[in-house]
Amino acid sequence: MSKAKKADVADAAAKTSDAVRVLGIDPGLNITGYAVIDVTRGQVSLVEAGVVRSKPKQSFARRIASIYEGVSDVIRELKPDTMGLEELYSHYERPKTSIIMGHARGVICLAAELNGVEIKSYAATQVKKIATGNGRASKTQVQLAVTRQLNLPEPPEPVDVSDAMAIAMCHYYLGLSGNPLLG
Amino acid sequence: MSKAKKADVADAAAKTSDAVRVLGIDPGLNITGYAVIDVTRGQVSLVEAGVVRSKPKQSFARRIASIYEGVSDVIRELKPDTMGLEELYSHYERPKTSIIMGHARGVICLAAELNGVEIKSYAATQVKKIATGNGRASKTQVQLAVTRQLNLPEPPEPVDVSDAMAIAMCHYYLGLSGNPLLG
Repeated sequence: MSKAKKADVADAAAKTSDAVRVLGIDPGLNITGYAVIDVTRGQVSLVEAGVVRSKPKQSFARRIASIYEGVSDVIRELKPDTMGLEELYSHYERPKTSIIMGHARGVICLAAELNGVEIKSYAATQVKKIATGNGRASKTQVQLAVTRQLNLPEPPEPVDVSDAMAIAMCHYYLGLSGNPLLG
Repeated sequence: MSKAKKADVADAAAKTSDAVRVLGIDPGLNITGYAVIDVTRGQVSLVEAGVVRSKPKQSFARRIASIYEGVSDVIRELKPDTMGLEELYSHYERPKTSIIMGHARGVICLAAELNGVEIKSYAATQVKKIATGNGRASKTQVQLAVTRQLNLPEPPEPVDVSDAMAIAMCHYYLGLSGNPLLG
């Protein structure tokens, strides 16, 4: 089992009936960032964010399983209505990296599907553009942007968490615009 | 749920206590081939082989879930002791293909891990070399080789099934040589 570092800001049980709960996931083999936000009539609040880690010394299959179990736990505990998931770069220097990252992202898709959560995918450039106005922004710029947008007391660490927050926000802005609860 | 076309040759329940049961998997997004063989003191017999299909009209996450559920069913029903799994080509023309195939292979690894089946990976060239003596053999050559080696009444179809048989045989020859039951 992976342990999720939780940076609670609001009570996870406090979701109101007219809120839409959005999960953002930044997939990775070592560290997968997650962030859950509630959106109520255009007001955004952070519910919880953290990371799911896999242990590099374990077998590849066990690491994949740790990611699956960690993300499944987050979904079952926080019950998001919908999920935004970052696409993988298709320009890794080594094709093997694309394949390995695909394994990790595959089990994240599976965790969402088997728990009845719909998925939308976003390119990293889309996520950065929505967060900062610049599709090529640095991770630090994204970190500062979500700190401001979510009224956080300090920038979230590690960057996998701030990236997951930006993905959740991107999904809210781009993926849920037709939702009457979000007007 | 995916349906598995079964090409039964022996009774799946007939595994003797001194047999080692080997599962071979040829991963794919549309069609994943599987083959289960029993090895008893150097004698190889086919238990069952078939395919797990995903429906192209369904969502990507649902397709991934169908592969996961189909492979999990095969493992739970036939209870292999060990699994050989083909590696993905790292030289697809489009990097996106590597990523998509990685998603499918990731959930296959997960199905094995969560059911306690160890996995060994083999390159396609290794599998072909073991089956035919030639690492660049055609799929038809592999098909004819496994037909002969497993004493099948006719060549297995589709080639995803014959490839899975060749992967299971490769795992027997390369991955299990230290096993005293296989002498």
